[in-house]
Amino acid sequence: MNAVLEIEQQPYLLREDTQQGITTLTLNRPKQYNALSQAMLSALQQALDAIAQDKHVKVVIIAAEGKAFCAGHDLKEIRSQHEEAFCHSLFQQCGKVMLSINQLPQPVIAQVQGIATAAGCQLVAACDLAVSVDTAKFATSGINVGLFCSTPAVPLSRNLPRKQAMELLLTGEFIDAQTALHYGLINRVVTAEQLNSNVQALAESIVAKSTTAIRMGKQMFYKQLEMPLTDAYHYAAEVMVCNIMDEDAKEGIDAFTQKRTPVWKS
Amino acid sequence: MNAVLEIEQQPYLLREDTQQGITTLTLNRPKQYNALSQAMLSALQQALDAIAQDKHVKVVIIAAEGKAFCAGHDLKEIRSQHEEAFCHSLFQQCGKVMLSINQLPQPVIAQVQGIATAAGCQLVAACDLAVSVDTAKFATSGINVGLFCSTPAVPLSRNLPRKQAMELLLTGEFIDAQTALHYGLINRVVTAEQLNSNVQALAESIVAKSTTAIRMGKQMFYKQLEMPLTDAYHYAAEVMVCNIMDEDAKEGIDAFTQKRTPVWKS
Amino acid sequence: MNAVLEIEQQPYLLREDTQQGITTLTLNRPKQYNALSQAMLSALQQALDAIAQDKHVKVVIIAAEGKAFCAGHDLKEIRSQHEEAFCHSLFQQCGKVMLSINQLPQPVIAQVQGIATAAGCQLVAACDLAVSVDTAKFATSGINVGLFCSTPAVPLSRNLPRKQAMELLLTGEFIDAQTALHYGLINRVVTAEQLNSNVQALAESIVAKSTTAIRMGKQMFYKQLEMPLTDAYHYAAEVMVCNIMDEDAKEGIDAFTQKRTPVWKS
Repeated sequence: MNAVLEIEQQPYLLREDTQQGITTLTLNRPKQYNALSQAMLSALQQALDAIAQDKHVKVVIIAAEGKAFCAGHDLKEIRSQHEEAFCHSLFQQCGKVMLSINQLPQPVIAQVQGIATAAGCQLVAACDLAVSVDTAKFATSGINVGLFCSTPAVPLSRNLPRKQAMELLLTGEFIDAQTALHYGLINRVVTAEQLNSNVQALAESIVAKSTTAIRMGKQMFYKQLEMPLTDAYHYAAEVMVCNIMDEDAKEGIDAFTQKRTPVWKS
Repeated sequence: MNAVLEIEQQPYLLREDTQQGITTLTLNRPKQYNALSQAMLSALQQALDAIAQDKHVKVVIIAAEGKAFCAGHDLKEIRSQHEEAFCHSLFQQCGKVMLSINQLPQPVIAQVQGIATAAGCQLVAACDLAVSVDTAKFATSGINVGLFCSTPAVPLSRNLPRKQAMELLLTGEFIDAQTALHYGLINRVVTAEQLNSNVQALAESIVAKSTTAIRMGKQMFYKQLEMPLTDAYHYAAEVMVCNIMDEDAKEGIDAFTQKRTPVWKS
Repeated sequence: MNAVLEIEQQPYLLREDTQQGITTLTLNRPKQYNALSQAMLSALQQALDAIAQDKHVKVVIIAAEGKAFCAGHDLKEIRSQHEEAFCHSLFQQCGKVMLSINQLPQPVIAQVQGIATAAGCQLVAACDLAVSVDTAKFATSGINVGLFCSTPAVPLSRNLPRKQAMELLLTGEFIDAQTALHYGLINRVVTAEQLNSNVQALAESIVAKSTTAIRMGKQMFYKQLEMPLTDAYHYAAEVMVCNIMDEDAKEGIDAFTQKRTPVWKS
């Protein structure tokens, strides 16, 4: 009983910041496979809102405690409060968390082990980058309980080829990490031993860049994707002008021509 | 003469329904490589319109009789009635059939053998899922007769990477089933012996799901793809609320928590 | 001194036309890794504008002299004229060149060796097709000098899966030709010995088609990609009607049914 209480008192989400600017958010309900309960989603939203304002944070890692990355929504919670108002609030809250990842100034890397199912698979898809262990499995399994993974379909259908996304959504079947890599759901597949160091190295390579350039770039990337081609080119060119007039670009080009390491202001 | 007459009297499209809810439409002009003549397109449109209203149908398979899946439009028919009004009617009719597959409440699986060329390749691309034998070949070969595969380009460019779609359209060259799988044109490659059983198993796995959830999900999938990201999340969340308030989702979640097989109402 | 002068007097861009209708534009500043300086971009724009009006040109190859395909913008030039008006003009000019490739009536093939970085990688992505040697490497390396590859992100994010494009843009790391092929950035990987002959064969296969059909098709392809599905089908069907009422389609279908080689008017 004591042990259970102790676990329950742990926060749902752990945050760890390095001096370098790498912030790791760790989903911390391992016994519940890090289910995205209302409380977990609130903790994520709060953390993302704080990070968006935090100039010290240069890159975010979303990791998970325990055997699973994330098994999606908390079905027990849903069933115990099965009312339209609650469900409306829950799914809009979930969508908002995913959008916040997309709109966060800093790049977000998913660090995946075990399973990532339903809204957990959505969480992987919604991140900018994802690294997974070779034993991980992915599924949009909501359809198995009569609930089509509609919000997961949003980032899934924007990351994967259409027919492959549709097959996952209609069948609810698992794919392994290699297949997820092949489909474009994740960026890298590594062994369990390499997972942490690989994600750290990826995060460090981003931290080593100009923060101003990274922030401008991430925002521009998603914004231009929703424009017709002509508008996208005009807009991207304007962003490049802003970027190149910044001190960091001047320093970067000088360092390059002088064959030395740049020292960023941002 | 009798034999020919007998064949000519066969309907262009065969429909077979199982009690389970699997409807198979079989293109049945094998000697003409199941060319999409005006009569064949009319038969397809009529069948799809009927299926859209048919609550017993849970999944549709589009299969083909003979050596080829479908060789596209009937060039002899076109050349014999080569007038603008006829061509206008034919291509708009063809586009409408493809759109009807997209808008059909039920998922549609292409079961492909032999060749799928021009509008036949379009038919594969327009389906939600596709399973092909390992010996099948795909091409948008219209360009070889001076007719760029424009309507096929619509689903092709939405299923394949852009440069790969462009190469197929500009060169008219064949790709094999493995390449088609790699490009995202199809979902699975199997042996000739496995084709029927694999498609049946895929259809059965969809039939085993909640029909309400599948129908909501398929419609939502294509609709949200045409929205900006923020709108897509909002819309998808609303669909999930409708879905979860349905009896099937309640039953599905209960069955899951009680570790039993769900019994769907729909 | 003489040797240097001689090189400086060479035009930045070479144009070679075959009687068949294949025009090769060769980037010709090998010592500067064919950097896209203002002068180089002007030369490209001028050449593309001339080709757009040239009925003899049926297909365009963009090739490069020397060890590199193209290393992107000329950083020395930028740094020596680091003013907002200059940068604005430069990046808008660059975007216009890329758009001109897209809007050119003739298909454009990139013939890639060595490295294609930053705006050089963009140039590959902006072409309709790309063939690369197996030793070539690709990167959007601007981020290494504090300048996120924003305009390169436009065609990159429309050719590659989203997470793979994002990784290239955020890390600036190189990918090899096989990876570029797997991601959809290029169409074919060949040996250095095969590069020229493979690109020629690809160009010849397009030249052998009806020019009218190819031109209608290329324009239609990109235009319909920006439409909702229903509009895309309607528009594509109308293009097919125009295409089929052209003499070439009539000849093509006649030649096909008569089992002879078509003789195009266009």
